[in-house]
Amino acid sequence: MGRATLDTETHNSGLERAIERPWFLRTIISLIILNAVILGVLTYHASLSPELVHLLELLDHGITWVFAAEILLKLVVYRLHFFKSAWNWFDFIVVGVSLVPGGTAFSVLRALRVLRVLRLLHVVPMMRRITEALMKALPGMGAIFAVLALVTYVAAVMATNMYGNTDNEEVALLFGDLPSSAYSLFQVMTMDGWRFEVVQKVIDDGHPYAWVFFLIFIFIASFAILNLFIALVVDSLAAEQQAILEEGLEDIEDDLEEELETAELGRSAILTAIQEMRAELADLRSVVERQSRD
Amino acid sequence: MGRATLDTETHNSGLERAIERPWFLRTIISLIILNAVILGVLTYHASLSPELVHLLELLDHGITWVFAAEILLKLVVYRLHFFKSAWNWFDFIVVGVSLVPGGTAFSVLRALRVLRVLRLLHVVPMMRRITEALMKALPGMGAIFAVLALVTYVAAVMATNMYGNTDNEEVALLFGDLPSSAYSLFQVMTMDGWRFEVVQKVIDDGHPYAWVFFLIFIFIASFAILNLFIALVVDSLAAEQQAILEEGLEDIEDDLEEELETAELGRSAILTAIQEMRAELADLRSVVERQSRD
Amino acid sequence: MGRATLDTETHNSGLERAIERPWFLRTIISLIILNAVILGVLTYHASLSPELVHLLELLDHGITWVFAAEILLKLVVYRLHFFKSAWNWFDFIVVGVSLVPGGTAFSVLRALRVLRVLRLLHVVPMMRRITEALMKALPGMGAIFAVLALVTYVAAVMATNMYGNTDNEEVALLFGDLPSSAYSLFQVMTMDGWRFEVVQKVIDDGHPYAWVFFLIFIFIASFAILNLFIALVVDSLAAEQQAILEEGLEDIEDDLEEELETAELGRSAILTAIQEMRAELADLRSVVERQSRD
Amino acid sequence: MGRATLDTETHNSGLERAIERPWFLRTIISLIILNAVILGVLTYHASLSPELVHLLELLDHGITWVFAAEILLKLVVYRLHFFKSAWNWFDFIVVGVSLVPGGTAFSVLRALRVLRVLRLLHVVPMMRRITEALMKALPGMGAIFAVLALVTYVAAVMATNMYGNTDNEEVALLFGDLPSSAYSLFQVMTMDGWRFEVVQKVIDDGHPYAWVFFLIFIFIASFAILNLFIALVVDSLAAEQQAILEEGLEDIEDDLEEELETAELGRSAILTAIQEMRAELADLRSVVERQSRD
Repeated sequence: MGRATLDTETHNSGLERAIERPWFLRTIISLIILNAVILGVLTYHASLSPELVHLLELLDHGITWVFAAEILLKLVVYRLHFFKSAWNWFDFIVVGVSLVPGGTAFSVLRALRVLRVLRLLHVVPMMRRITEALMKALPGMGAIFAVLALVTYVAAVMATNMYGNTDNEEVALLFGDLPSSAYSLFQVMTMDGWRFEVVQKVIDDGHPYAWVFFLIFIFIASFAILNLFIALVVDSLAAEQQAILEEGLEDIEDDLEEELETAELGRSAILTAIQEMRAELADLRSVVERQSRD
Repeated sequence: MGRATLDTETHNSGLERAIERPWFLRTIISLIILNAVILGVLTYHASLSPELVHLLELLDHGITWVFAAEILLKLVVYRLHFFKSAWNWFDFIVVGVSLVPGGTAFSVLRALRVLRVLRLLHVVPMMRRITEALMKALPGMGAIFAVLALVTYVAAVMATNMYGNTDNEEVALLFGDLPSSAYSLFQVMTMDGWRFEVVQKVIDDGHPYAWVFFLIFIFIASFAILNLFIALVVDSLAAEQQAILEEGLEDIEDDLEEELETAELGRSAILTAIQEMRAELADLRSVVERQSRD
Repeated sequence: MGRATLDTETHNSGLERAIERPWFLRTIISLIILNAVILGVLTYHASLSPELVHLLELLDHGITWVFAAEILLKLVVYRLHFFKSAWNWFDFIVVGVSLVPGGTAFSVLRALRVLRVLRLLHVVPMMRRITEALMKALPGMGAIFAVLALVTYVAAVMATNMYGNTDNEEVALLFGDLPSSAYSLFQVMTMDGWRFEVVQKVIDDGHPYAWVFFLIFIFIASFAILNLFIALVVDSLAAEQQAILEEGLEDIEDDLEEELETAELGRSAILTAIQEMRAELADLRSVVERQSRD
Repeated sequence: MGRATLDTETHNSGLERAIERPWFLRTIISLIILNAVILGVLTYHASLSPELVHLLELLDHGITWVFAAEILLKLVVYRLHFFKSAWNWFDFIVVGVSLVPGGTAFSVLRALRVLRVLRLLHVVPMMRRITEALMKALPGMGAIFAVLALVTYVAAVMATNMYGNTDNEEVALLFGDLPSSAYSLFQVMTMDGWRFEVVQKVIDDGHPYAWVFFLIFIFIASFAILNLFIALVVDSLAAEQQAILEEGLEDIEDDLEEELETAELGRSAILTAIQEMRAELADLRSVVERQSRD
């Protein structure tokens, strides 16, 4: 806690105040939206003049450097605390990727540039509330996802063993290896073209009873998904209700306690009055007895 | 508040009473239904005799003028208050569009004529209750729609960059430009033919790992929609619940308060009786003491 | 209330007791199930021997006559009360249709024979509970169904006007006349092949902006269905909860009332004791005063 | 209850303790996961070296024997109690099937081997909680499943009678016999390609009004499924709610009772004080009266 540290802290808290000012947030939000528009317009690069494309690419680059500066600022201000937030990691990676030299040469990395726009999800408070609610629901779904994944894995191994060894190209695409089978079973789970795009092709490939296997899978998967959903609704509601009820009950308990106290006070006032009267009565008695002795 | 104004007001409130009479509403509802039937029959104009078509067109025109007169009446009665209701704006625009001269010449405007029938949605009380309930649910969905729209936009930019630059006509239709990509991603979101109509075509166009991108998108979008839905159910229920619970708890509190008061009254009656008795005791003492002095 | 009537009543109540005995119900249920199996086997009539088909047809006929006798019995017992139950009407019509002479000659009427099996829905108590719960939910859905039907009608008139006048056979099948349009819009509402089976065909027929119309329709219809669903869940739950809460609150109110009474009794016992003491004090005073006068 | 029995019990309870130790469970879980991986890798047997395939098959066999030993151990420990748990039956059958000699020769039995991996569903506690919750929901769905099955059976008989007798191969595939019809109606129920893969083919086969039949079926089936779902949500929630509410209300009642007691005690203290004072007053009176007699 020497002088230097103090100076830095003073300096940082000045920066911190700047970072947390509304205009700073508004500037960042505007830049993200502008960046989203630029990246949207750049999808038409083939029909735009090369000059305009160049200009937009420059602008995109400039905005990326502003974001990098913003992250650097936050690193200076919050230091290692910066990495305690998953969102900050997201920003760090998404902006970092765009700054890798030569990165813009590859279509996949170019495509990843646009992930920067997802920063809106935690920068805009309204959206942040939604995304954080979504995140909170994730662990509650974990166990059911595990069950669904296990059932799909087992069914995929079975389907590959039963239907995968075939010369029929369409069936080989569907169930030729383990990942294909899992993917096809996911398609069946979404009920999209399950009969004629999947099951019928397997039946026509010499497995007349394949429909039994798929119907069982559909029933189990739909049933699990249905229960996943019900569990989520019921949990959310029960939590909400418990909160409402507990608040209400606390109010009533406070009321009761208050009354208990008032009644207790009232009763002790009565008792006091009676004790005082008994003292007076005793006094009177002593007066009478003195009289009688006189 | 001169004489003229008063006269107008008297005149208007007479009109107002007429407008708000049941027979007026019933007439309007009947005319809308008749109009709906006429517009339905007119979809067969090619197989009807020209005279009948002409007659029906005339009838439709007549009914439109009646609606225009109704709106004029309301304008005279409610004046600028008329425009405070979104439904009145709807009526005004929908009837107004039909009266644009030459409007019936264009197929789109002809098609829009039938929107007049949607006036039933707010004229029939039973339907009005439903539509107003639907409207009330809209703002609660706003934030999640914004998140879904943002995710779809980002995914659409990525898909256009990754898959749009192709000679394959089918894939160009799907992901050739930004709006097409967004539309195709909406199709994927509805799970309609997502595998063989969309993903497989991209895979066959030289992107063997495209399924990774689409599976991630399906999971995120389905998850967001699921949560949108759960949030709506939970909010509606929590509101309803809160009302029921609060009413019930208030009843208990009222009961408690009433008892508190009764008990308070009872205790103060006891205290009063004790005080009176102490006064009597004091009296008695003075009698005894006077006696002893005597 | 002459003799004859009395006799009939006695006779009927004997019959009534027979009809309502468990073995009667069990016999009817067994016959319906047997009938279901026979009608199922008869769907294979082409590959069965003519003798067996003839035998099964005779059995089916025999069972129908047993059902007719059952209904006659019920008519004798309950007379016009019989027609107060919608289920009895159902039995009456479904069995009656099978007895129309020559009825078995037409494939549609033959097909309707199997509706008799649906009698299980109200004869088996467990199923009756379900079907009656379903019926009770119907009125609550009426208003939203009306809104959905109106929106679909308006959209169907618009689609017929805009897309129906075409030489393209596929589009004519989809939107050529009003019922076709309504049917195609229902398909879009179920999200089944909406893009490439419906919207794309209209777009390819020279309406490049048709997707706007269909997206708006999808949003409105999905949103209405979603709300229909939420309203049903919320209503069912709110009713259930209100019942639970009201019961609980009544318990508490009873408790409170009981306590109120006990406290009241306690306080009046105290007051009585005080009054008695005051009387005793007054007595004492009179003794003292008499003493002083002496 | 001789000596021998006692010995066995001591011996078994030692074994029982071993079986229920965490490391035993962890070993079993690890072996199941290893088995799952082996069976997954074995789906690629065509592209693996024969030696590796042989090794993996040996490993799989070894693990199966470990599982068999585990079941034997449990049989020795729990004896006939072992068969009281449905999960144990599952283990017994699934492991037993794999040990049938020659079983590995048939592709179906080979495919069934992987069912062993489903043992995870009840061995891992987190998954066991989920699967047991799913099982508990089953009976509540029974009655509605029965109604759905009955409606589908009746509709399948009708569809076979009306549309099955045809030369059109596609329609014969859809509705040629009773199981095909039931299967096609299940497809319609899942809304997958219902219009152009099913209904339109029937219409084109000379049944222009077939859509009426299918629309009625869709409405009834969707409505039943919707209600099934709502009933499940409402039941789960109502149970949860009832628990929360009852607990809360009991809290209030306990509070009230406690207060009742305190108040009762307070009032009896007051009454005692008053009675004592009355005794003192009576004493005083006797003093005064004695005085006056003196």
